[in-house]
Amino acid sequence: MKEVIAVVRMNMMNKTKAALTEAGVDAFFAHEAQGRGKGFVNAAVLEGAESGYEEAAAVLGEKGKLYAKRMVTVVVPDDQVEDVVEAITEVNRTGKPGDGKIFVLPMGDAVRVRTSETGTKAIQ
Amino acid sequence: MKEVIAVVRMNMMNKTKAALTEAGVDAFFAHEAQGRGKGFVNAAVLEGAESGYEEAAAVLGEKGKLYAKRMVTVVVPDDQVEDVVEAITEVNRTGKPGDGKIFVLPMGDAVRVRTSETGTKAIQ
Amino acid sequence: MKEVIAVVRMNMMNKTKAALTEAGVDAFFAHEAQGRGKGFVNAAVLEGAESGYEEAAAVLGEKGKLYAKRMVTVVVPDDQVEDVVEAITEVNRTGKPGDGKIFVLPMGDAVRVRTSETGTKAIQ
Repeated sequence: MKEVIAVVRMNMMNKTKAALTEAGVDAFFAHEAQGRGKGFVNAAVLEGAESGYEEAAAVLGEKGKLYAKRMVTVVVPDDQVEDVVEAITEVNRTGKPGDGKIFVLPMGDAVRVRTSETGTKAIQ
Repeated sequence: MKEVIAVVRMNMMNKTKAALTEAGVDAFFAHEAQGRGKGFVNAAVLEGAESGYEEAAAVLGEKGKLYAKRMVTVVVPDDQVEDVVEAITEVNRTGKPGDGKIFVLPMGDAVRVRTSETGTKAIQ
Repeated sequence: MKEVIAVVRMNMMNKTKAALTEAGVDAFFAHEAQGRGKGFVNAAVLEGAESGYEEAAAVLGEKGKLYAKRMVTVVVPDDQVEDVVEAITEVNRTGKPGDGKIFVLPMGDAVRVRTSETGTKAIQ
C-alpha cells in the first residue's frame, strides 16, 4: 500500500478527480496548500538576503513566493501506483513550470472505521 | 514511531479530540480536507464520462463528489498505535458510509524544536 | 529522500521560508493546521471528563485546545535532512512551549509532472 500525494494547479482539480476516478480510484482527499517549486526564487533577492539586507529578506519571506495549489491524496495498493501516477501526470502536464509534483510514500496500514477492515480491504 | 492520520466527519472532531486525550495522546494536529470514499460515484455518470460525454465528465468533476472532512494527525510510539486506532474507531463508528478511514504511516524521526529532543522523547 | 514536515507558529512562516531558501531548499508547501502540543491540557478538566462529567468533556472538546499553526512540508535528499532540520530549528526556537515539532518521514519516490523525472532529480 502506498500514499500518493499530488500537488497540482488549482484549476486542474476537476480533471485530476475525473482522471483518478477513471483510473479506478474511488477514495481520495484534497486540501488547499501554498507551494513553491524550483525556479521561482529571484537569485538577486536571495543574494541580498544572504548578505543581510533586511529588505531582500522581507521580499523573500513575504512576496509572491507561494502559489495556491491543491494537494490530492490517494491511498492505493502497490500495483496501482504506476497507473495512478500516469493518470495524474497525463492530465496535469502542460509543459510549463508549475505542473506540479507527485510523491509516493510507504503506507503501513489502513483501517475502515465503519467495519474495522484493514489493509487493501480498507481502501477498496 | 508512527504517524496516524484519521479522516473523520466534521462534527466528530470534538469527540475524537476527547478520545485521543483520554487515550493519552497530548499532541495532535488537524486540518480541513475534502474527501470522497468508495460508493459516492454514480456509475451511470462515470460510464458517460468514460464514453466521452462532456456533461457527464463535468458532473463527475464538479458536483457533490467531495465532502468536507477533518484530517487528524497524531504521532505516537509504535506500542500506542493500536490504542489510538481503537479510540478513534470507537467514537467515529456510526455504521453508515462516511465513518472515515485511519492510515498508519512509518515515521523516521521527530524533533522538538524547543529542546532538540528526538525520537519518542520529542513526542511525549 | 525524506519528507520533512515542520509544525511552526503562524508568525514564524516568513522566517522559516527564508531559512529554507538559504539552506538550499527551493520547493516546499505549506498549509494551515490547528494543533496542540503537550502541556496544554488542564489536568483537572481531563480528570473530570474521565469521570464522566459532561461539562468537562465539553470543555476538553471545544475550548481553546487547538492553536492555529502552519505546517511546512519539504522533500529533500537524505543528506540534506540534517541541514534542513537545523535551519528550521534555529529560526523557530524561542525556548517557550509552542515552538513546534519537526517530523521526518521516509519518501518512496517523487515525480516531476512536467518532465516525468523521478527520484532526487524530481526535487532538485
